[in-house]
Amino acid sequence: MTSVTVLGLGPMGHALAAAFAADHPTTVWNRTPGKADGLDAAVAATAAEAITASPLVVVCVLDYAVVRSVLDADALRGRTLVNLTGGSPGRAREMAAWAAGHGVAYLDGLIMGAPADIGGPDATLLFSGPGDVYRAHRRTLAALGGNATHVGEDPGRAAGFDASMLDAFWTSMIGVVHAFRFAAAEGIAPAEVAGHMKVSTGLLPDLIDVVAEHLTADDYPGEESTMLSAAASMDHVLDAIRAHGLDNGVLSAARAAVQEAIDAGHGSDGFTRLAAL
Amino acid sequence: MTSVTVLGLGPMGHALAAAFAADHPTTVWNRTPGKADGLDAAVAATAAEAITASPLVVVCVLDYAVVRSVLDADALRGRTLVNLTGGSPGRAREMAAWAAGHGVAYLDGLIMGAPADIGGPDATLLFSGPGDVYRAHRRTLAALGGNATHVGEDPGRAAGFDASMLDAFWTSMIGVVHAFRFAAAEGIAPAEVAGHMKVSTGLLPDLIDVVAEHLTADDYPGEESTMLSAAASMDHVLDAIRAHGLDNGVLSAARAAVQEAIDAGHGSDGFTRLAAL
Ligand SMILES: NC(=O)c1ccc[n+]([C@@H]2O[C@H](COP(=O)([O-])OP(=O)(O)OC[C@H]3O[C@@H](n4cnc5c(N)ncnc54)[C@H](OP(=O)(O)O)[C@@H]3O)[C@@H](O)[C@H]2O)c1
Ligand SMILES: NC(=O)c1ccc[n+]([C@@H]2O[C@H](COP(=O)([O-])OP(=O)(O)OC[C@H]3O[C@@H](n4cnc5c(N)ncnc54)[C@H](OP(=O)(O)O)[C@@H]3O)[C@@H](O)[C@H]2O)c1
Repeated sequence: MTSVTVLGLGPMGHALAAAFAADHPTTVWNRTPGKADGLDAAVAATAAEAITASPLVVVCVLDYAVVRSVLDADALRGRTLVNLTGGSPGRAREMAAWAAGHGVAYLDGLIMGAPADIGGPDATLLFSGPGDVYRAHRRTLAALGGNATHVGEDPGRAAGFDASMLDAFWTSMIGVVHAFRFAAAEGIAPAEVAGHMKVSTGLLPDLIDVVAEHLTADDYPGEESTMLSAAASMDHVLDAIRAHGLDNGVLSAARAAVQEAIDAGHGSDGFTRLAAL
Repeated sequence: MTSVTVLGLGPMGHALAAAFAADHPTTVWNRTPGKADGLDAAVAATAAEAITASPLVVVCVLDYAVVRSVLDADALRGRTLVNLTGGSPGRAREMAAWAAGHGVAYLDGLIMGAPADIGGPDATLLFSGPGDVYRAHRRTLAALGGNATHVGEDPGRAAGFDASMLDAFWTSMIGVVHAFRFAAAEGIAPAEVAGHMKVSTGLLPDLIDVVAEHLTADDYPGEESTMLSAAASMDHVLDAIRAHGLDNGVLSAARAAVQEAIDAGHGSDGFTRLAAL
């Protein structure tokens, strides 16, 4: 069993360390001591000491700036670094360049799921970077979740998947919380509106397939819903939101994107064309 | 069987007329002639003629301005008008006041579903306005879909449900199309990213229940996801979007709403608190 080092014991780092420690000699380090409770792992006094304990070093901290501040390039030389900190594709590529400059094999990984999912079948982990580095450690990394995949050699690719998925997710969540706020202004209780909202957002997975099909065919038929009818529907909603003096920044920005498409001559195309503009 | 008049034979009006005509003597009118093909209905030459043919008049046209322009107040007096045109709660209340002023019984209705759903079990129709008017016509209106409900006496209430549901829906859809656009900029094909997006948006129905629970308890625990961690995650995505020079108006507006909550001291509360601010 390869031994593994985990740097960072926030909620996610702690879950990662627990999953490795079930099968692998594990060493951990965290800036603030006392976070290794319940872990069957050796606790190192410094990040450099933790790094030199294992050929495979996993880092999972707040952000990429913190990653750089905790890593010791000399200690890492000749080892493999797997960075499971959330970030953008550009940061991942910068980090990969830094690692290459210091003789460190590098994988950039993204976790889709909560700490409680780690080690179970529902945790999806995407890794990008050199395929041979991934293959050398894939069995060890599989301890983190049933759904670990190598998505490409470009170190930014895992973060690219993550960012596009989070773009859809956060935008949707903002729509959901705003809809509850609007319902309250209309005197509609959360439990009353939740059922309807579940039905309409429950359509999204199927509609995502429709968007993907239209994009793949590069054809955006408007039979079901045109850009113009989407605009009219959004205008009703914006009217209603403004009538309560509520914040309407998100939907107004969405409406502006639709207007741009209409002005560009796509009014009777399907709403899905927006995905291609 | 009550006879029914349908004004407006766009895709939706046509579907409504077909559903009524299966069981009821039906009269139809449309501004542009020749739209009654395939309908077992009498075709009136004018809206006034169509209105006087039935005690129950259903109107479904482009918007409320068109509704007002096609209705003949003298012809309508003493009849019941059911307006299934999409609009905001304020427009519905104005229309109800107009109807009351002309001795017309009025229900405002909203259709959640597509023309193809009408008459089947999946069409949800919400009606608001006087309960006795709804009860007098509920059996006739049930021809339109298995899921017809009276949601309150306030004529704006059906539109209120619709607008809050559409707020969540359109905001989510904008997130989805934007995510595909971003993925393309990262060189990720639609079919590659669709699966991940389906998983993350597939979480929404459960999260909607969580938001409703938090709102009902007026308690927004941050164990799973705080306002601060949402902000950090959105910042990664915005970084990535901006790196491609893509439009980021929608997510930036969402991020600004999160920042307001943080500035108001809610950084370590759950993201769900946004629904209450
Ligand atoms: N939690 C989730 O649901 C989840 C899901 C997917 C991905 N992720 C990703 O996992 C990463 C870690 O998340 P997390 O939930 O564990 O919590 P977090 O709050 O993002 O990170 C906490 C960790 O970062 C360390 N840290 C922060 N600032 C530091 C500094 N200046 N110097 C040294 N260490 C510092 C903390 O050490 P101290 O204990 O000393 O503060 C702790 O180990 C993030 O990048 C996140 O995007 C999290
Ligand atoms: N289609 C859907 O999926 C759907 C779903 C839920 C709710 N709705 C609601 O149903 C209503 C009708 O929608 P729709 O899909 O049938 O198509 P629409 O394009 O919204 O409306 C078409 C109808 O409006 C009439 N119209 C437009 N301008 C007019 C004017 N100035 N004077 C007289 N008539 C005019 C059209 O007559 P002409 O034939 O003469 O142009 C036609 O009868 C809308 O309010 C919509 O919000 C639709």
